[in-house]
Amino acid sequence: MRTVVGRLSAIERVTAELIATADLMVETRGEGFTEITREVAGFVEQSGGRDGALFAYLRHTSASLTIQENADPDVQTDLTTALRMLAPHDGPWIHTTEGPDDMPAHIKAMLTGVSLHIPVRAGVLGLGTWQGIYLVEHRATPHRREIILQFVGSRW
Amino acid sequence: MRTVVGRLSAIERVTAELIATADLMVETRGEGFTEITREVAGFVEQSGGRDGALFAYLRHTSASLTIQENADPDVQTDLTTALRMLAPHDGPWIHTTEGPDDMPAHIKAMLTGVSLHIPVRAGVLGLGTWQGIYLVEHRATPHRREIILQFVGSRW
Amino acid sequence: MRTVVGRLSAIERVTAELIATADLMVETRGEGFTEITREVAGFVEQSGGRDGALFAYLRHTSASLTIQENADPDVQTDLTTALRMLAPHDGPWIHTTEGPDDMPAHIKAMLTGVSLHIPVRAGVLGLGTWQGIYLVEHRATPHRREIILQFVGSRW
Repeated sequence: MRTVVGRLSAIERVTAELIATADLMVETRGEGFTEITREVAGFVEQSGGRDGALFAYLRHTSASLTIQENADPDVQTDLTTALRMLAPHDGPWIHTTEGPDDMPAHIKAMLTGVSLHIPVRAGVLGLGTWQGIYLVEHRATPHRREIILQFVGSRW
Repeated sequence: MRTVVGRLSAIERVTAELIATADLMVETRGEGFTEITREVAGFVEQSGGRDGALFAYLRHTSASLTIQENADPDVQTDLTTALRMLAPHDGPWIHTTEGPDDMPAHIKAMLTGVSLHIPVRAGVLGLGTWQGIYLVEHRATPHRREIILQFVGSRW
Repeated sequence: MRTVVGRLSAIERVTAELIATADLMVETRGEGFTEITREVAGFVEQSGGRDGALFAYLRHTSASLTIQENADPDVQTDLTTALRMLAPHDGPWIHTTEGPDDMPAHIKAMLTGVSLHIPVRAGVLGLGTWQGIYLVEHRATPHRREIILQFVGSRW
């Protein structure tokens, strides 16, 4: 038998009551990371949500959502470099009509994803100390991006 | 202080009431993308769900679920090419008993994921204009794949 | 018109009532996979949850959560190899103050993700036959990792 690897805390229980939904529009400045932690936290606060989870969904296929380090901006530079290496502009792509940055942008979006959730406790996002929520723009030029935010859980 | 990067819409609130669950069985034709948007939308409609979120979960480790471009089929070809480059058949893999396409399939599934959610408003999936929902088969041969679909939210 | 690609089962409906939340602390042994399926299943059982979904969220940026093959341990070895190839220690990274394994760990976390969900039916996780839930440590040394587990759904 495998040994128990983790230690579980006490369980908190609440009644599911509320689903709150809103759109967040973000203007990007071209390829790179835009932190949206404050905006997402503001939504949770305004929603009246207490305990539950925050769901974020990006309505695009050439940008993505990710949770990443919020301390050293160099990390974001390196993450952008890594994505360029994994999906190079000069790859053997056949979908090239929208420019050399378009197909790599789709590949990056597939690898990093457009949907995520974060737990909420007492109205506060359960992010780790060094975690921030980021919209990652994969296209070279600025774009207007739509995110649907939802809170599912209990009310205050 | 960082400037506010996004603009938040008004928040819609409903009562969480319904969790609806069903299985979707999909026959793939081997490596590549199978669009399941219509089937997922049909589930949401049949579930009686109004506002909330759709959750999809794939019960396999050599295929995955992704949201991607639904306009130009060349994008799917290029995404398949990209995955082959990231997880090549001739990599230094030691798990080779199930064939040269098996371990690359596990790697591709790890990179692209088996769970995702999509917001639902007034019974309609909140997909972006160019987004489709895809089951991505990573094995070379046809497989029967099981997806668990769930709606969490309010009723009509 | 595209043909229908999937077959949908009957839909089960329950009332959303319960959100249960707990922390799972896991001690890793350095780079590699730690299975937490038993711990997550134990949480669902203890939560009193019946039908709904389990949400897991990892509060770190240099480790991740993934669903993967639980049969042959060689798969985990190969997945670790694949991640090393995708995010090599000797890449052109500028964030190097925390050691050569740190920036690759962030890249691996971005590619594999920190949030996932699994459906629950009659208190049982809807995992496929060969699926296990894993915490993937990307740092070279042992770390203490925090996971927030949540059940959203109906009660027994």
